[in-house]
Amino acid sequence: MSEFEQTEVNRVVRVPKRGHYDKETIYSILDEGYLCHAGFEIDGRPFVIPTLYARVEDSVFIHGSSVSRMLKRLDEGVETCITVTLVDGIVLARSAFHHSMNYRSAVVFGKGRRVVNDEEKLSALKAISENVLKHRWDDSRQPTENELNVTTVIEIPVNSASAKIRSGDPIDDENDYDLPIWAGVLPVKTRFGNAIPDSKLQAGIGLPDYLKDPLGE
Amino acid sequence: MSEFEQTEVNRVVRVPKRGHYDKETIYSILDEGYLCHAGFEIDGRPFVIPTLYARVEDSVFIHGSSVSRMLKRLDEGVETCITVTLVDGIVLARSAFHHSMNYRSAVVFGKGRRVVNDEEKLSALKAISENVLKHRWDDSRQPTENELNVTTVIEIPVNSASAKIRSGDPIDDENDYDLPIWAGVLPVKTRFGNAIPDSKLQAGIGLPDYLKDPLGE
Repeated sequence: MSEFEQTEVNRVVRVPKRGHYDKETIYSILDEGYLCHAGFEIDGRPFVIPTLYARVEDSVFIHGSSVSRMLKRLDEGVETCITVTLVDGIVLARSAFHHSMNYRSAVVFGKGRRVVNDEEKLSALKAISENVLKHRWDDSRQPTENELNVTTVIEIPVNSASAKIRSGDPIDDENDYDLPIWAGVLPVKTRFGNAIPDSKLQAGIGLPDYLKDPLGE
Repeated sequence: MSEFEQTEVNRVVRVPKRGHYDKETIYSILDEGYLCHAGFEIDGRPFVIPTLYARVEDSVFIHGSSVSRMLKRLDEGVETCITVTLVDGIVLARSAFHHSMNYRSAVVFGKGRRVVNDEEKLSALKAISENVLKHRWDDSRQPTENELNVTTVIEIPVNSASAKIRSGDPIDDENDYDLPIWAGVLPVKTRFGNAIPDSKLQAGIGLPDYLKDPLGE
């Protein structure tokens, strides 16, 4: 299956032509991001918490301390919604009404389950680390058994999902194109800055190659 | 009241010293961001949707089309959670375990109510517009009565809230400081790029001043 079935849950209601249901589109957004917002319910109240993640095959993995309220709740197998939003630009139309945002968002639904096998846990932790910054995992001191024990990893198999994408020029009402108002797109760019050494960094430890040009540009 | 009461709902469980409950801290995060993730529940399932917003006094305002599923649901007065996350850097510790993120997040709880008065609606829409890009509202064609009618504005009075902040160097285990591993922070910066004119922009309309230096730098 390369496409998620459209249901009441994942259907893009507002501006349906911006909705996408194929895995290629949805997973490319998940793979470009590294921070998601996880939604879940406790006592009838919704919570939205930012957290790092990685997609591996048809699952999203998140991790954290075993005392985390979010992870304890997801470990109960409740429904969760994982959303990743990449902002590309502010869309400046001539009318206030047609202002918009260029963005790519992926919304994923599923029920969490705790990863118990140590090997699978390590592999998920490495995937999250690599999704944030490639090459760092192999360059860091690996987790001890105790560190693994106090870390919870939750797998959320993607049960349903959709993406929503807006790109390109503003769309104004026909009559408004004559107005003497500047219109266009203000791009939004997220970039890494220059790495800042730890104040306790030992002398003689140079910046690794993967940090010199972290976006590969 | 300048501080939110700590309850089961808003208390920062994991790393309590990173939790903040004063309005000044929470509102400064809300005012720096412009994109939030709104969480709400439909049929027992959580949804997390990205949307623009503005804070005015003790409320968060969001808007959209009257047919939006999210806005229709919030109009029913259900509990919602609005989360804003500002990422400042990737924290690279010597151990994989102590890797972290420098960030400032605000999590806000409240029940939505629809803004019905046209004047209040306009004022909220202007606040959202100004929170995304200052000076743009007055430079765009103002909403017609029909445009206002098909736009829903939801006010979420902030009932409870907290912020969570991490900043500064990685914190490694004492023994790990001797390891020959580079450690520090990789800053994450979000910036506007150079404005791209609409392909249908009329000749002779120059770039407004507020778009030449949108961050005021």
